[in-house]
Amino acid sequence: MSKVKVSFSVSIDGFGAAPQQSLENPMGVGGEALGEWVFATRTFQRMHGRDWTFQRTPKDGGTTGVDDDFFARNFLNVGAWIFGRNMFGPVRGPWRDNSWKGPWGDSPPFRGPVFVLTHYPRESIPMQGGTTFHFMTDGIHRALEGATAAANGKDVCIGGGVATVQQYLRAGLIDELSLAISPVLLGSGERLLGDIDLVKLGYTCTEHVAGQRATHVVLVRHATY
Amino acid sequence: MSKVKVSFSVSIDGFGAAPQQSLENPMGVGGEALGEWVFATRTFQRMHGRDWTFQRTPKDGGTTGVDDDFFARNFLNVGAWIFGRNMFGPVRGPWRDNSWKGPWGDSPPFRGPVFVLTHYPRESIPMQGGTTFHFMTDGIHRALEGATAAANGKDVCIGGGVATVQQYLRAGLIDELSLAISPVLLGSGERLLGDIDLVKLGYTCTEHVAGQRATHVVLVRHATY
Repeated sequence: MSKVKVSFSVSIDGFGAAPQQSLENPMGVGGEALGEWVFATRTFQRMHGRDWTFQRTPKDGGTTGVDDDFFARNFLNVGAWIFGRNMFGPVRGPWRDNSWKGPWGDSPPFRGPVFVLTHYPRESIPMQGGTTFHFMTDGIHRALEGATAAANGKDVCIGGGVATVQQYLRAGLIDELSLAISPVLLGSGERLLGDIDLVKLGYTCTEHVAGQRATHVVLVRHATY
Repeated sequence: MSKVKVSFSVSIDGFGAAPQQSLENPMGVGGEALGEWVFATRTFQRMHGRDWTFQRTPKDGGTTGVDDDFFARNFLNVGAWIFGRNMFGPVRGPWRDNSWKGPWGDSPPFRGPVFVLTHYPRESIPMQGGTTFHFMTDGIHRALEGATAAANGKDVCIGGGVATVQQYLRAGLIDELSLAISPVLLGSGERLLGDIDLVKLGYTCTEHVAGQRATHVVLVRHATY
């Protein structure tokens, strides 16, 4: 069955983003440390090299193993994505023009429909490589309905950021939350779980695997109603 | 050089204790899940068997390896302990009599001086096996002075609970914080780090080791002034 899933990196002290997010520091100042386990993986290095085939060959750079497996899993069987406006870029308020197309270049790695939450309507943007950005102005539930229909039986992945994940968690709409706990301290920023009670929401930890640069835990929601 | 250290278990969602702490549930309802990595270790099972020699022999029960090493490390080179009143027991207010001597039986595993923070004076209690409980009514700084003197060059270990650890962290008095992240969700209870900014306090992560039942991270404070 298709599911709604999230993969997110958090610091030891629970932050999913560092303070002072900007175009230069999309994860906040110092926040890139959260992703170090990602950057080292073969899957990421292939994506960075703009080779979206995800085939692994012995000559590839980057690490294989647990971290690589978990990062690759993010992209497996995903039929559609949902991003918060913050994640799509630092632009705020009404779209002044159509020049901003996200921070991922002409050929983003999503290779399918990406639903961007925003208060301001905008025409969809088809990109190279199969990614199309759609702008959803009717709230998180309508965005999920659109993404689920577009995913056509595959999974929907909520890509972030923190505020968007929190909204979907509180609404009880996320089936599986895969957290990578990075061995860093951020001290301040956006706490991913904040005051969210995952037990009351019906989650339990079903996997706990140590990678080389992060510890991966998978939290699955069992229907509580 | 001697140091002030803390070892604490936290859940994936950052709780150091579950809600509704009581004599029956000293770590709160469901909180014992935080300690599952401890209960499985050979060191704990030896302690539970009231054999305080900490010698390891092949016929011992319990697991060896990373979890066991980290648990055993808690007790290495400790010259004195500091506990919050809450950790010493569920009794509140003035000591009605001298019958409560902690939840650890006649021969607690600390084998040295234990300084208990309280607002209510009480005579020291010598126990079997070398543990003596001293009751400190003049605040956390005086308690640490007493413990440091008693430790006589060895380390001082702040045993908990959450509120006590937080007070010492905020005061910048903890040199090393060893956290065991247990693969469980608690949902509510006492968050260990709450609104504490460990980066501003000068901590960095110096070790990150995966055990069988918990991930261990060591946070060390570098003087910031």
